Amino acid sequence: MIKTVIAGVTGYTGQELLRYLSQHPHVHVESCISSSQAGKRLNEAGIAVPDHLDLVLEASDSSVVENADVLFSCLPHGSSAPFIASVLARNSDIKVIDLSADFRFHDSALYQRVYGKEHPVPEKCQEAAYGLPELNRDTIRNASIVANPGCYPTAFLLACAPLVREGLCTSFIYDAKSGISGAGKKTEETYLFAELQENSWPYSVFSHRHEPEMEHQGERLLGHSLRVFFAPQVMPASRGILGMVYARLEKDISAEDLRSLYADFYCAEPFVKLLPPGKRPETSMVRGTNNAVLQLYTHQEETLVCISVAIDNLGKGAAGQAVQNMNLMFALPEEEGLPRIPLKI
Amino acid sequence: MIKTVIAGVTGYTGQELLRYLSQHPHVHVESCISSSQAGKRLNEAGIAVPDHLDLVLEASDSSVVENADVLFSCLPHGSSAPFIASVLARNSDIKVIDLSADFRFHDSALYQRVYGKEHPVPEKCQEAAYGLPELNRDTIRNASIVANPGCYPTAFLLACAPLVREGLCTSFIYDAKSGISGAGKKTEETYLFAELQENSWPYSVFSHRHEPEMEHQGERLLGHSLRVFFAPQVMPASRGILGMVYARLEKDISAEDLRSLYADFYCAEPFVKLLPPGKRPETSMVRGTNNAVLQLYTHQEETLVCISVAIDNLGKGAAGQAVQNMNLMFALPEEEGLPRIPLKI
Amino acid sequence: MIKTVIAGVTGYTGQELLRYLSQHPHVHVESCISSSQAGKRLNEAGIAVPDHLDLVLEASDSSVVENADVLFSCLPHGSSAPFIASVLARNSDIKVIDLSADFRFHDSALYQRVYGKEHPVPEKCQEAAYGLPELNRDTIRNASIVANPGCYPTAFLLACAPLVREGLCTSFIYDAKSGISGAGKKTEETYLFAELQENSWPYSVFSHRHEPEMEHQGERLLGHSLRVFFAPQVMPASRGILGMVYARLEKDISAEDLRSLYADFYCAEPFVKLLPPGKRPETSMVRGTNNAVLQLYTHQEETLVCISVAIDNLGKGAAGQAVQNMNLMFALPEEEGLPRIPLKI
Amino acid sequence: MIKTVIAGVTGYTGQELLRYLSQHPHVHVESCISSSQAGKRLNEAGIAVPDHLDLVLEASDSSVVENADVLFSCLPHGSSAPFIASVLARNSDIKVIDLSADFRFHDSALYQRVYGKEHPVPEKCQEAAYGLPELNRDTIRNASIVANPGCYPTAFLLACAPLVREGLCTSFIYDAKSGISGAGKKTEETYLFAELQENSWPYSVFSHRHEPEMEHQGERLLGHSLRVFFAPQVMPASRGILGMVYARLEKDISAEDLRSLYADFYCAEPFVKLLPPGKRPETSMVRGTNNAVLQLYTHQEETLVCISVAIDNLGKGAAGQAVQNMNLMFALPEEEGLPRIPLKI
Repeated sequence: MIKTVIAGVTGYTGQELLRYLSQHPHVHVESCISSSQAGKRLNEAGIAVPDHLDLVLEASDSSVVENADVLFSCLPHGSSAPFIASVLARNSDIKVIDLSADFRFHDSALYQRVYGKEHPVPEKCQEAAYGLPELNRDTIRNASIVANPGCYPTAFLLACAPLVREGLCTSFIYDAKSGISGAGKKTEETYLFAELQENSWPYSVFSHRHEPEMEHQGERLLGHSLRVFFAPQVMPASRGILGMVYARLEKDISAEDLRSLYADFYCAEPFVKLLPPGKRPETSMVRGTNNAVLQLYTHQEETLVCISVAIDNLGKGAAGQAVQNMNLMFALPEEEGLPRIPLKI
Repeated sequence: MIKTVIAGVTGYTGQELLRYLSQHPHVHVESCISSSQAGKRLNEAGIAVPDHLDLVLEASDSSVVENADVLFSCLPHGSSAPFIASVLARNSDIKVIDLSADFRFHDSALYQRVYGKEHPVPEKCQEAAYGLPELNRDTIRNASIVANPGCYPTAFLLACAPLVREGLCTSFIYDAKSGISGAGKKTEETYLFAELQENSWPYSVFSHRHEPEMEHQGERLLGHSLRVFFAPQVMPASRGILGMVYARLEKDISAEDLRSLYADFYCAEPFVKLLPPGKRPETSMVRGTNNAVLQLYTHQEETLVCISVAIDNLGKGAAGQAVQNMNLMFALPEEEGLPRIPLKI
Repeated sequence: MIKTVIAGVTGYTGQELLRYLSQHPHVHVESCISSSQAGKRLNEAGIAVPDHLDLVLEASDSSVVENADVLFSCLPHGSSAPFIASVLARNSDIKVIDLSADFRFHDSALYQRVYGKEHPVPEKCQEAAYGLPELNRDTIRNASIVANPGCYPTAFLLACAPLVREGLCTSFIYDAKSGISGAGKKTEETYLFAELQENSWPYSVFSHRHEPEMEHQGERLLGHSLRVFFAPQVMPASRGILGMVYARLEKDISAEDLRSLYADFYCAEPFVKLLPPGKRPETSMVRGTNNAVLQLYTHQEETLVCISVAIDNLGKGAAGQAVQNMNLMFALPEEEGLPRIPLKI
Repeated sequence: MIKTVIAGVTGYTGQELLRYLSQHPHVHVESCISSSQAGKRLNEAGIAVPDHLDLVLEASDSSVVENADVLFSCLPHGSSAPFIASVLARNSDIKVIDLSADFRFHDSALYQRVYGKEHPVPEKCQEAAYGLPELNRDTIRNASIVANPGCYPTAFLLACAPLVREGLCTSFIYDAKSGISGAGKKTEETYLFAELQENSWPYSVFSHRHEPEMEHQGERLLGHSLRVFFAPQVMPASRGILGMVYARLEKDISAEDLRSLYADFYCAEPFVKLLPPGKRPETSMVRGTNNAVLQLYTHQEETLVCISVAIDNLGKGAAGQAVQNMNLMFALPEEEGLPRIPLKI
């Protein structure tokens, strides 16, 4: 059994990670860390688990990781990196999967520009593998730190990868709608039920921190530079991302060949599925899973293409992908322990 | 009092229209027509009204319009035009506001191409005014038939009008999310509560019938031809449209000048509001009203602009705009009887 | 025009009150008070209004009431009463409608027992009329302070009144589900969208502060003492209360006679409607209005009766009823300015 | 591996059952039956599964069961029993778990009275075990037909069992709110998204078919006759039941002893949990699982008790309980293959 520690378990991502890991046949959750609720049991902290899983939450003292095989950090960006550094100082053999943004840039200067503060452990930035298995599998396998991608970049990079790899497109408009759990568990007026019910709004248009992440990692993983014009929006749902990626084709390719390109690119992937023509992607198709579904739309008279993509922001966009990364790092079958059928309703 | 008849009152648009008209100080609803539920009272047909408004639904026999001043038709496209023709044959003085798609094309051949059947009364197509007051006020004032615009075109045309009038942009990507009432009251599996809750999906991408409506009326009203690449989506809400319009600026203009352009364009409009910088449009800002709110986003390094727009698809997108058109046709103040403050929650 | 001041306008009740009053033909809103956001305009405080209604929020200094005819206080309980006392000290002619709980008990000792603190102005408790027009119309007409009832008591008292007046029942189980706006705009984890979506829970079972309000005012208005066992619950909605009142009939009465009793009791009431047999009450039937709908269910073999009642907690449960009370206090027709047709969707 | 057939897989219960079974380490789903969509693959029928699970749907010809170990029938009542009879005629060794209502009454005359038609195979009624493991474990272990209980009766019987066994209460008011999936996938206007969003209503008050099921099986399993006054309601959610059971205590018992009674009754049950005092049951605590949570409320001055219970109507109320029953029938650990941590959001 893989001895596992989760830091930051009381957030939405941490809860979902615990749900995934509790169903994994090769994982034992040794301890859960929550600085704000240390000393409480999981059930007291509002995370409903059966009694036999009802661990006492630990303080964010790194000693609990001494005998662990893997640490999942769901701490906020800025806090996650120094905690990970302290963990590695105590247990240099532990593998780390960081669900925060702290290691998503290969370059600490870029981190500083985007997040507005110095990187806490810049020397580790180049060590971390970007944890998008479909585009970076081999590096992840051998990494000791994996930076789990942001939810929006996961959806975007899966949607655009075949186009960019082939040099077909370099500039993208990315319009994405997310359920509110993507923002984390923030007790602010904006996130209240009555404020979001029957409501929808854009935010951080052309200025979201995931925009440089997509450009930076897109270029590194796909071998071509690209521009992303990113407009995120909130929809009245707890979970789910529906992304619409628009691009002009810079080379001639027929709709049929484009479909073949995507079908071939993802044919061996267990979690990414190109839907048959005419079938629309829906966020409900992926709810509670690590799956991603894609559909292609080509405008009849023009060279404009739209790729639509649906993921669960807490699944492939966070906890599910983290488990997929762990499976790779521990040489397990990539699907191990990951639920395959969604809660369609 | 303006003697009013509503045809097709049992749909979502018809109900909302009745709600608006019942609050209008110069309107008396004389009769309501519903071919499927004729003989029932409104309350029996599931339209909750106080007893004194509880009319008996009439069959779609046109005799009830003989003494009416105005007919609102909420019949389905294809059925609406012949009914309107029969009404005009009986009462040539009546004014007509058609909420279906039947008179939205000036050109009956275009109607046939888009809707796949011959126009039932092609000779009336050129008579009808396209009922978007902000762009076509004078024509509406003198029209006897007004074609109330589609919900998506209303949002789009308000968002792009200043750009197109100035010749700044000619090609648009229009990504729009709508509450499900935009599809009407259809008893199909897709529209069930459990299917849409926590869900979202695209449909009719690059093939929606509102795409040619936007291009056709955009050119007629704005004086320049334009291309629209339209990708509609459903969000898990009953009401509301959040539109995101993306375009490349084809001439140099600063972000400040662009803001001034929009501010000036709509400064005298009671129902269209450019939000102050930094304020996001939300569909809740317009719920239950005839209002539209706009925001501009310019990408810092590029010439890409995004206009975000929110309307209530049943308000400015249907019933509210119909009442605004009626006010114009009867020389009333344009705001008369229209609620101005939204149900923010 | 009735010169009106609203204190506490930024809460859900205050916003809805502004929405009602802006449509009232005899009301002019002179000023709005918000201690937390004084100096901002309404639009800046997130209350979407058209520009001509965009007042600057005033501090809760009572001077703004000097020339007003009526004050609506939407302040929290405990703060409302002292503010009202200070207002009356400056303008003894002003009429006051208090939407807080501060004047809902005729007896300040009972207030202290229920709310756990001394009443701030105990001498005013007996002056205030309990503002449930259907049961207390004449007193309200002549009152200078009206205590607007709680949302749950409004629904309960309308549902049980005919039974209690006739001495048919004295003990009630009251199971009620409310939309979350009943709790006010509280930025606590419990009220976040992701926490309530697809969720429901009971709270304050047998210990809610509205339980003594129902018993106290029930006895005063209906002439018989009664017991209420009250179990409130939250449902995943912003608005609406669906109440189920269960009681054993203590005297023989047939189902037909019971129906007649209710029909007669409410036959002249504009806002309370007994639905025809077989028609279920729905919260959507009253959304955005001051209406209440009732249905009766009698168990076939037993003497158990259930009265189901639906109101909008922000309408008849708060702002709508406040306007109805104002109409009575100013000798206007009771329906004046109150919307009559719901937003069915 | 247990060779499994699911009949009626395209409904909400069937889909959820497939989700559970696909995660069960000892189950292989051999075939899925759907008379309406036979010949389609699961994915074509809108049930999102990974490719390796994408079975072709079979017609409801019973031959597919010849080599199966267990049949789950999710067919509608009235259709399920004759299909099961035909299956048993072909394969007398197969075990059957019926999720319809057809075998929930021990007595075929009672079935006829409640469901208004003759029982199709009355001779089998006495053979079937009522599949509520917590109250009927030993009988289920040895049964070849298990009647999976209704969702409302499951919640009710778990809530009242300790009281009835001890002879403390005999008469219950049961007020229960359900997500809409409890009604199945019905394409009727009532079930449309726009009709239920922000809405709630009672239905079948005192006349629901689950009322006699609760009385009949309550008496059989608990050893005392009981009366249930049942008022079901729909809440705007896809899943979840929140039940409130009210009863007068007919013998003296302190609140502490009552809590001990429940704690002892369920202390060894893996799926039923009495929450600690002060913790409210929420439907989100059980979403996607086979769990049930209970809380007790005693009115301070009276002998009235309220038991609140939350289950997932598709989990413990249907598919989860069916898997629990299968585990018992095949001598597996009762928790095998059942997810233990809910999708809290």
